[in-house]
Amino acid sequence: MSVCLQIEATRGPARAGRLITPHGEVETPVFMPVGTLGSVKGISQDVLEELGVEILLSNTYHLFLRPGVETVRKMGGLHQFMSWDRAILTDSGGFQVFSLNELRKVSEEGVAFRSHLDGSARFLSPEKAMEVQIGLGADIIMAFDECTEYPADAARARASMELTLRWAERCKRYFEEHKAEVPWKSSRQPSAVSRQGKQVLRSAGQPRAAVPTGKNQALFGIVQGGMDPELRRESALRTIEIGFPGYAIGGLSVGEPRELTRDVVLSTLEHLPSDRPRYLMGVGTPEEIAFYAQSGVDMMDCVLPTRAARHGLLFTSEGKISIKQARYAKDESALDPACDCHVCRRYSRAYLRHLYAANELLAQVLNTVHNLHFYLVTMRTVRAGIRAGLAPASGAS
Amino acid sequence: MSVCLQIEATRGPARAGRLITPHGEVETPVFMPVGTLGSVKGISQDVLEELGVEILLSNTYHLFLRPGVETVRKMGGLHQFMSWDRAILTDSGGFQVFSLNELRKVSEEGVAFRSHLDGSARFLSPEKAMEVQIGLGADIIMAFDECTEYPADAARARASMELTLRWAERCKRYFEEHKAEVPWKSSRQPSAVSRQGKQVLRSAGQPRAAVPTGKNQALFGIVQGGMDPELRRESALRTIEIGFPGYAIGGLSVGEPRELTRDVVLSTLEHLPSDRPRYLMGVGTPEEIAFYAQSGVDMMDCVLPTRAARHGLLFTSEGKISIKQARYAKDESALDPACDCHVCRRYSRAYLRHLYAANELLAQVLNTVHNLHFYLVTMRTVRAGIRAGLAPASGAS
Repeated sequence: MSVCLQIEATRGPARAGRLITPHGEVETPVFMPVGTLGSVKGISQDVLEELGVEILLSNTYHLFLRPGVETVRKMGGLHQFMSWDRAILTDSGGFQVFSLNELRKVSEEGVAFRSHLDGSARFLSPEKAMEVQIGLGADIIMAFDECTEYPADAARARASMELTLRWAERCKRYFEEHKAEVPWKSSRQPSAVSRQGKQVLRSAGQPRAAVPTGKNQALFGIVQGGMDPELRRESALRTIEIGFPGYAIGGLSVGEPRELTRDVVLSTLEHLPSDRPRYLMGVGTPEEIAFYAQSGVDMMDCVLPTRAARHGLLFTSEGKISIKQARYAKDESALDPACDCHVCRRYSRAYLRHLYAANELLAQVLNTVHNLHFYLVTMRTVRAGIRAGLAPASGAS
Repeated sequence: MSVCLQIEATRGPARAGRLITPHGEVETPVFMPVGTLGSVKGISQDVLEELGVEILLSNTYHLFLRPGVETVRKMGGLHQFMSWDRAILTDSGGFQVFSLNELRKVSEEGVAFRSHLDGSARFLSPEKAMEVQIGLGADIIMAFDECTEYPADAARARASMELTLRWAERCKRYFEEHKAEVPWKSSRQPSAVSRQGKQVLRSAGQPRAAVPTGKNQALFGIVQGGMDPELRRESALRTIEIGFPGYAIGGLSVGEPRELTRDVVLSTLEHLPSDRPRYLMGVGTPEEIAFYAQSGVDMMDCVLPTRAARHGLLFTSEGKISIKQARYAKDESALDPACDCHVCRRYSRAYLRHLYAANELLAQVLNTVHNLHFYLVTMRTVRAGIRAGLAPASGAS
């Protein structure tokens, strides 16, 4: 198996361990920052490394439109294209097709939609989504699913779930036949992926992020089923029957109340195999990611820390801060006195408030660094708590 | 004297040495990156330090409007406000009043204008410009001058020059009477400004960038006189008669042809004292800064490297590159194979082109890092050439 989870400690339903990927190990439970277009907005890969990011999420839908899979494939895949030799996960595009395209047309074959950039006609099917994700070359790729809208009646939720199951089989079939086409440069050494000694690329074609020969991507299945626990159970069991090295819970954060999200996640988790990574897609606040990690989720992603940062909303050990407020204009204290990120160590709230109010680019950069650090520390605390058998204060850094 | 130039090598009219300021030494000739609002757009102060920036320029006009001098003064001055313990120079606001305000009203007393942000009525006079610059607390501050428009007839150029001279006297008088009001935290140690061991501020009021007791800001005079060499000579001599620790050549880059700029600079330089720093304001391309440094200019600033970067225009050892061009979409080579900045070491032209085309924030960040590095290396090469008695290839890195 190309990706596997080594569980090293448990506490109730929670697990702490290591996700082994072709591009390095990832401590779990993990929060994956979102780098939609092959970049976490405003943050250089060096800074992500310093922050301790071990796995990034990138969006197939966006990369499919720009720069297009051919460009990324020709560059040796996303790792080499963006010069990131740690792990990457790509989603399947299913969620963006759903959320960015009101005029999409879903058929058994796939989804016809129009690019949100230029209105051009596009098509994604299970096979196409696999072809694109193999070309992008992330370590973990996701089955192409239909994200069921909320609310959906029972018949609609079942039909949608059945479609996702048929698509999951097609994804697996296509992936098994084509997985050797991943554009990774292979290496004969057991591990050419160096984190300490950074590799330097000057000339074309030189491998930057070579992986050991014989390593492959891993395709994860996605559980759907709307908000009905019974359908979720059926979706989980039948997805497991198809068989994947990891399972995601999809179709949430689509407008439903937060308590419902929570109920659906908890009931779905019960049906997922304990020896495979469990990935909850698109969730959530610091409190939520801590809660779900303590509930047995191994992987999460969310645009919240990065998007909120760009809007001046900052997560701190004392709660959320809207840095634009005039009350911070002459506040000499650190953004979060309990935080040791380089923003809190170096800059005052007054300076951060000034940068935001003056619409300075650096505001977005520094705010993003802090929020990512906060999320990463939140997960570090949760992991330490699981390993120590303690219940960490949720959301605290 | 609070700022002085130690000349350590000369080659023809060119000089290499060290500008000694209350916030550290600056190797000259030096290019000063522009941090208009107390931030070089998109670049964290850590990165500026890594790039080897020893002095920044910040704009009085912009800081006067946002966040206002009172805020910066209360924070202990610009160094502490922006957490930068190396040298800073502020301009006087004269140029921005001229370039950003068509409805300005110049009188003997000063300039009435409207904020380009909210249209509010504002006023800057020589005294007010000093008061603001003392409150901002840069190491080097500039006399409030009238930037003569181009073209200007002989009578207008003379009248404008005479006004600038009268204002220079008023600036000096006000500055001498009020220079003790600079909001620096003073220290008793001979040098509390540490570059290696970074100081950490967590609580309010702690000095971040303390300077030895008794150190003051330095006020530089500005030579005007339009494009007439005779008026420039007179302006230089009479400004020197007033007496400043350094002299700037202002009133250029106002629309005149490049050759005229060059002629005016060269003829003005002849009249400036060789033992004082000479600062050419708002110039220029890499070739120009190399040329002027070789002609005897010690200090320069320009928005070109940073502004061009944000528009995807990159300076390289092989000439200018517009990274948005489709020809770079699959170009795996480094932006500038001869450059060792962290952008050129890590990322391909294809990735930089993608970031720019996709309007990613990181494009502006990385492009700015590269262009600043290119300018700093250009000056480093010029300095080495002066010290070695060699003529460096202009603009090469």
